[in-house]
Amino acid sequence: MNEVSYRDITITDGFWKTRQDIIRNVTIDSVYDRFFDTGRVEAFEMKWKEGDDKQPHIFWDSDIAKWIEGVALFHEITPENEKKIEKIIDDIECGQDENGYFNIFFTVVKPEERFTHRTEHELYCAGHLMEAAVAYFRQTGRDRFLKIMCRYADYIEKVFKIEKSAAFTTPGHEEIELALVKLYSATEEKRYLELAKFFIDERGKRLEHTYGFFVDGMYDQCFKPVREQETAEGHCVRACYLYSGMADIARIYDDEELKNACRMIFDDIVNHKMYITGGIGSTPHGEAFTIKYDLPNMRAYTETCAAISLAYFAHRMQLIEQKKIYADIIEKVIYNGFLSGISLDGKAFFYENPLEIIPELRHKDVSVKNGERFPITERLEVFDCSCCPPNVIRFVAAIGDFAYTYDENTVYVHQFMSGEASFDGRKIIQQTNYPADGKVKITYYGKPCRLAVRVPDFCEDIETEDGYVYFDVEDGMETEIDLTMPVYFVESNPLVYENCGRYAVMRGPVVYCLEEKDNGKVLRDVVLDSSSEIEETQSDLTDVPVVKMKAYRRKAQNKLYYKKTDDMDEFTATLIPYYAFANRGENEMLVWMQVK
Amino acid sequence: MNEVSYRDITITDGFWKTRQDIIRNVTIDSVYDRFFDTGRVEAFEMKWKEGDDKQPHIFWDSDIAKWIEGVALFHEITPENEKKIEKIIDDIECGQDENGYFNIFFTVVKPEERFTHRTEHELYCAGHLMEAAVAYFRQTGRDRFLKIMCRYADYIEKVFKIEKSAAFTTPGHEEIELALVKLYSATEEKRYLELAKFFIDERGKRLEHTYGFFVDGMYDQCFKPVREQETAEGHCVRACYLYSGMADIARIYDDEELKNACRMIFDDIVNHKMYITGGIGSTPHGEAFTIKYDLPNMRAYTETCAAISLAYFAHRMQLIEQKKIYADIIEKVIYNGFLSGISLDGKAFFYENPLEIIPELRHKDVSVKNGERFPITERLEVFDCSCCPPNVIRFVAAIGDFAYTYDENTVYVHQFMSGEASFDGRKIIQQTNYPADGKVKITYYGKPCRLAVRVPDFCEDIETEDGYVYFDVEDGMETEIDLTMPVYFVESNPLVYENCGRYAVMRGPVVYCLEEKDNGKVLRDVVLDSSSEIEETQSDLTDVPVVKMKAYRRKAQNKLYYKKTDDMDEFTATLIPYYAFANRGENEMLVWMQVK
Repeated sequence: MNEVSYRDITITDGFWKTRQDIIRNVTIDSVYDRFFDTGRVEAFEMKWKEGDDKQPHIFWDSDIAKWIEGVALFHEITPENEKKIEKIIDDIECGQDENGYFNIFFTVVKPEERFTHRTEHELYCAGHLMEAAVAYFRQTGRDRFLKIMCRYADYIEKVFKIEKSAAFTTPGHEEIELALVKLYSATEEKRYLELAKFFIDERGKRLEHTYGFFVDGMYDQCFKPVREQETAEGHCVRACYLYSGMADIARIYDDEELKNACRMIFDDIVNHKMYITGGIGSTPHGEAFTIKYDLPNMRAYTETCAAISLAYFAHRMQLIEQKKIYADIIEKVIYNGFLSGISLDGKAFFYENPLEIIPELRHKDVSVKNGERFPITERLEVFDCSCCPPNVIRFVAAIGDFAYTYDENTVYVHQFMSGEASFDGRKIIQQTNYPADGKVKITYYGKPCRLAVRVPDFCEDIETEDGYVYFDVEDGMETEIDLTMPVYFVESNPLVYENCGRYAVMRGPVVYCLEEKDNGKVLRDVVLDSSSEIEETQSDLTDVPVVKMKAYRRKAQNKLYYKKTDDMDEFTATLIPYYAFANRGENEMLVWMQVK
Repeated sequence: MNEVSYRDITITDGFWKTRQDIIRNVTIDSVYDRFFDTGRVEAFEMKWKEGDDKQPHIFWDSDIAKWIEGVALFHEITPENEKKIEKIIDDIECGQDENGYFNIFFTVVKPEERFTHRTEHELYCAGHLMEAAVAYFRQTGRDRFLKIMCRYADYIEKVFKIEKSAAFTTPGHEEIELALVKLYSATEEKRYLELAKFFIDERGKRLEHTYGFFVDGMYDQCFKPVREQETAEGHCVRACYLYSGMADIARIYDDEELKNACRMIFDDIVNHKMYITGGIGSTPHGEAFTIKYDLPNMRAYTETCAAISLAYFAHRMQLIEQKKIYADIIEKVIYNGFLSGISLDGKAFFYENPLEIIPELRHKDVSVKNGERFPITERLEVFDCSCCPPNVIRFVAAIGDFAYTYDENTVYVHQFMSGEASFDGRKIIQQTNYPADGKVKITYYGKPCRLAVRVPDFCEDIETEDGYVYFDVEDGMETEIDLTMPVYFVESNPLVYENCGRYAVMRGPVVYCLEEKDNGKVLRDVVLDSSSEIEETQSDLTDVPVVKMKAYRRKAQNKLYYKKTDDMDEFTATLIPYYAFANRGENEMLVWMQVK
């Protein structure tokens, strides 16, 4: 299966154009400014000394790297951005060791401890800098940054693969594997690909240092060799970055054993460990997967970066084999658990994306004082662990990556977004307001082929083959499909104990939620009337409709316990897209609702 | 209002006779043996030295003290028990300082640090030893132990009240307040009462050391002077022991301000912070109250001792003023959240008494490894913090305390238990199988008076005055009342977010639950059919009936998420009394259920 890169696609209008414009016009500068304020930019000058404030953090390198990558992917190398980036590259060049090493924390804070702290993001930072260098090279054609990172990659190869002189064998925070694959694809230097494969092959062959509270390497997926792993375990961003690298290597080397491990792990995630929003990570303790069907809503971890990493994994699986599930999962992520991570105005972010918020509980003394970690309830412009904001920038920049794949006879349309794609001597113009409505018009130019258009599961009235409708197309042919966009109720497996007796409301691919702003407090007590008429109306909030329907709630009571009554008040419930929650101040929010 | 002491009551048969017999015949010896095995008994010899195993713990004194108190309250001073107790008293006598001080930990482990660690149970241990000495004196007439504890109380008065030479002013774990009131009532030495009042008056006048994770003295109720406190806060056993002492002092000194504080705090507990079982404490972090209506079921703290302490508080309020709520709450506690703390065979105990158990979640790696504290899922014979087992012994021994009060014209029958009560020149013989059935026969001997019999709220068909029915009785008169014992569904206030859409099943005063043993797994998915016929049947498990009714559950599914279906399997659900849960091995349990 061949990839159609975001580089070959221009998003021209519709849902994703709106998001890209906001990020181009607002988020890129806003995130840079926050990074500047917090010392992340200056840190590259390597002037920090013991006693100074703004001590560089172990993953600040990667924050800036993702910002550079995002700017490059967006083709937003304005003179101003160019100046910022070139200054950072100057600093990197200047701060790079003779031997090729580059890391801020392990140069200015703990220079004696390089490659001894397995869990402290050293190779993760290296990986993100490589991705940034590749993106900047591709956008500008200038290879200074790329060459710096090649020197660093060469040094890493020497230390880890040739001399084996580091205190550990494989990264404690995976990411460099998929980055090395990108570095290989930009440079065509096979050693980088082989180094990625080396890290994947070595992983789990021996017990290595990991965080204390997980046994036997579960936290960072080194509990056994990756080819023997069958379940998604541990820190879920680490996990899905690794799985993405595994899928890359499996595809490139046509490694069936590795493909099978990827398939099993992917199935475990999407059948047992994924929120309906595409969010992953059921506990903030270790930001990790837990056991099957354990999907608590209020204390969900579901980091924005985790959703991103799942989309990356799914996308790479899609390049291995054509199966509708991969595109389905990507769609779930991009319209829900990923998109909720950024505010509608593009300025503020969530780290965790919970499926329920009750501010009082978040603020109750005992939980906060005791360090029980609830997700924050309002998006913030920056947080200590600000991996997500620049990750959002680069992810939306490259959203086109998910739209198409093709093989000899068939071009697959997986995601719906207005734009022009040019690849393999063909051109596809897609026009759609999806998911505001379901009409999709595709104009095809090029040699005759089969066009396979994914039909989401909610379009039950359209007959498909393996979830796609096929059209034989030739040059200049227009194809139209009307994907029905129903509002429908979803239940989760009975084994998901959190959601027993509760249902989610979806409209097309978009998960909806109740917010206190529209519906008052105590949302858990709201009972939607599924037999009532469902009204869809445009709102000022966002570009897909809000949904209204009849609902009931119990009357206020003085007593704590009393005999069951059936005395309820009727009202009209207003549901908004989940991705738009928490954009009107702190308030209650709920995804899984009672329905009668 | 006058008290009728357990000492004036003999339980002759029925529900409480069964419990008392089990504790007499099994629990007393079983708890002693576990305490012996763990070194708690030997610790009194004060021979422990650095490097020895079984280092005495800061509250081992109180564990043994409660066991002695329980044996004495039970009139179980058999020759064997007498030998055990006298040996311990020998050790206490021998280990007591010249100045009167006695504490194992602060003699053998940290002798230089007496009265410097406010939060470490030193005065709490003193209080329990005083209670034990009073009970032993009352049962045997021998005053050696009592005099030892009076010497200690004198020393405490000197250090804290006269010289003010301790590093803190008021106990970090309250208990000594109510114990000093008992010491006063046994010795008629008013200084002890005044010392209790001193500790209560001084509390919260200044900020004192407390655990770090609570602000401003919330943890141990010293955030403001007790007369200004309006809400139940902090560690709930500490809290209710304090409130019990406050109620004692309020009554004895006829202190209206203090009575009002007690009333407000009591209202706050029973209207906002109490589980339907009478359990209290919504978080294991600090074993504490949290915010109004925050009553999580699976992670409930609800320690057995906390239920006991609430009953003590309610009982003391009942002595201040006649209000039905106090007896209602006591009934809730004794048949539910207290009684669940001991296994049906009398050998094993719960510390926490959760309202839901899912063993898989308890055992999932990430929660245990990260120290998220879930309640244990099976009763144990002993645990590190074994305050509850001996507390259960002394509580059941004195269960008669709760049955009656009287004033000039009226004898109040608050609780239903077969037995003979002799007080104030009267005799009452109560015959009942309550709560197996609701028939209560009361034979009265003595001067003519009004007999006021409490009618529980579930007996809706009986007309009452303030919740009691009144009978004019004279010598030898028999009175019968038939308290209907319906099975009924209860809901909690809509603000209790955990229970929205869920209901509890009760039969009379007894809360019922579903267990996996009877109903299979995934109890949260069970939907009871409230319109179906309800069957009550005797079972081998315990002495009140099990309840059966029609129910539904969803069919097993492979998918994680799917469009709402209404496809359910019908089955007969079996509900057992909550107090009998977890007596057939580890399994799922649920109190708040779906009902249609």
